[in-house]
Amino acid sequence: MSAPNALFVRAAKAQPTERTPIWLMRQAGRYMAEYRAVRKKYSLIEICKKPEVAAQVTIEAAEILKVDAAIIFADLLLPLEVMGLPFHFAAGEGPKIEKPIRTPADIAHLRTDRAADLGYVAEAVKLVCKHFGDRLPVIGFCGAPFTLASYMIEGGGSRNYVFTKKMMYSSPGAWDELMRKLVSVTAEYSGEQVRAGADTIQIFDSWVGCLSVEDYRRYVLPHATDLVSRLRKTGVPIIYFGTDSATLLPSMKETGAEVVGLDWRVPLDTGWQSLGFRGAVQGNLDPVLLFAEWKELKPRAEDILRRAAGRPGHIFNLGHGILPETPVDNVKALCAFIREHSAEFKK
Amino acid sequence: MSAPNALFVRAAKAQPTERTPIWLMRQAGRYMAEYRAVRKKYSLIEICKKPEVAAQVTIEAAEILKVDAAIIFADLLLPLEVMGLPFHFAAGEGPKIEKPIRTPADIAHLRTDRAADLGYVAEAVKLVCKHFGDRLPVIGFCGAPFTLASYMIEGGGSRNYVFTKKMMYSSPGAWDELMRKLVSVTAEYSGEQVRAGADTIQIFDSWVGCLSVEDYRRYVLPHATDLVSRLRKTGVPIIYFGTDSATLLPSMKETGAEVVGLDWRVPLDTGWQSLGFRGAVQGNLDPVLLFAEWKELKPRAEDILRRAAGRPGHIFNLGHGILPETPVDNVKALCAFIREHSAEFKK
Repeated sequence: MSAPNALFVRAAKAQPTERTPIWLMRQAGRYMAEYRAVRKKYSLIEICKKPEVAAQVTIEAAEILKVDAAIIFADLLLPLEVMGLPFHFAAGEGPKIEKPIRTPADIAHLRTDRAADLGYVAEAVKLVCKHFGDRLPVIGFCGAPFTLASYMIEGGGSRNYVFTKKMMYSSPGAWDELMRKLVSVTAEYSGEQVRAGADTIQIFDSWVGCLSVEDYRRYVLPHATDLVSRLRKTGVPIIYFGTDSATLLPSMKETGAEVVGLDWRVPLDTGWQSLGFRGAVQGNLDPVLLFAEWKELKPRAEDILRRAAGRPGHIFNLGHGILPETPVDNVKALCAFIREHSAEFKK
Repeated sequence: MSAPNALFVRAAKAQPTERTPIWLMRQAGRYMAEYRAVRKKYSLIEICKKPEVAAQVTIEAAEILKVDAAIIFADLLLPLEVMGLPFHFAAGEGPKIEKPIRTPADIAHLRTDRAADLGYVAEAVKLVCKHFGDRLPVIGFCGAPFTLASYMIEGGGSRNYVFTKKMMYSSPGAWDELMRKLVSVTAEYSGEQVRAGADTIQIFDSWVGCLSVEDYRRYVLPHATDLVSRLRKTGVPIIYFGTDSATLLPSMKETGAEVVGLDWRVPLDTGWQSLGFRGAVQGNLDPVLLFAEWKELKPRAEDILRRAAGRPGHIFNLGHGILPETPVDNVKALCAFIREHSAEFKK
């Protein structure tokens, strides 16, 4: 940990803070001119693999927005490559996995012995920690086993997750093997980030909300719990985030994650209540509200603070990542508003 | 109404039934060889516009599956055409609206005086009712104003609904005008279906789950309520269906719809409880479970019946439409199982 007493870290541990900390998922991204300038020189994957550039992008975004944490710039899918599944980004589309896995044999071939090859991410974390010292905490992250498995099996994004669910239902043994392999690699990968100085790990289970509660509990929860347990041993608080997850929240809390990320579909207090108000929550402004005028956006941010009701353990964030066309001035205004006015909602 | 005493209609009114009625969203569709044979001769839109063919497709699916209701074969987007927004289906993709609406002026130009041009759907309803007499009820349907507006504005399907929400936030007056126009056209269109003999209208708000509770209540609920009120005057029970809607259910119930459709993300009893167990519910098997072996699928169907717990007012269905590659034998087995065994769960 490089900033153990920072506002963000204390909130993640559900300790009282003088104001609400804020950071934003995908805060370094295409909506920001400084990031687009770097992207003219390097592809997304090149940025990830050059620690100096990844660190620069990470630092720049945090400083421009004056947020309370810097999230390391990396891609969710990096572990796929070291497991033997190359991927690329098709122009204007999402990621494409070149040979999606569809059979138990495909799963048997996945490698788990090359997580160390992702060391460039830990290297970038180290540079960011060095830059900020104890002034700003650094967030490391990884994809959750379900969400990574869905990319591996579908070959990219998906609407219905048919191949993924078919694998779960028809080959539960192979499915468990896949999840174990993913937990092994992501635990080592994230552990390296913590050893490099990260103050927390956020586990992104972005697409887990396509599952029924029963499927989540049967096919995902044991593995997500295993990952959280391994990461908690590193001593940093763990954030577990999903979307479409209103009905999954109590189960997600069972993983032992200190912080649960909420999307905008569940009112913050309702979501927190469904966690028994145990631990911390992060969220949950609809990212599309950043396209609205400030007079519409401001009361929505206030509403979230009001629903947090001064309880210790709220980290302000969006309900999902910042979208590419988002007006940057609104993002800055939101961060400034939370910095300057959230203390008033703590009373 | 052509079959006012049918099992399905009684369940929709939350009256006790001897067993659980079943029908499946998109029960006439590409997964079925008989439908594919018709599609070799006609495009989807041609089927909709030829009442004899639409009726044939509707009847055939209901008879093959031996379900408890026939849903008229039609496309959600038909009203767009008579409002002045032509669309087509791009090969292998979803619908494409040729000139999506993006400004208040675009909305002002939308016509509401040509709903009668959709009379071919009512004509098909008439033929189906004539075929079944009082042996099988017929379900008419329309898109909900939000879901139709999202297609009109995005120009097709969407992941983030950025343009739709921008319209809501930045031009609330124009948004309301758009919703009023959609309610006017769909109320007339669905009313015609009831006058032709339909025993219920299902309102599909398939994409409404992208909204926060606050946005739903502010921008959608008044209009959805207006539509439900107008349709209830026809005397048939109204089904209001959405996906990703776990947190919206209590608000959706406020529209006055007799039946609320649940997707698979919310356990049936949890969803029904959030409606205060008032009225009926429809759902909610994950359509992807139809790709699983029967030994996996059967306990999931039983689980839903068990969660209904013999309360009057459960209509068995999926949580969304049948997917194109679904094995037809599983669909038949599910329908047979509910027909033959649901009475055991009523005790």
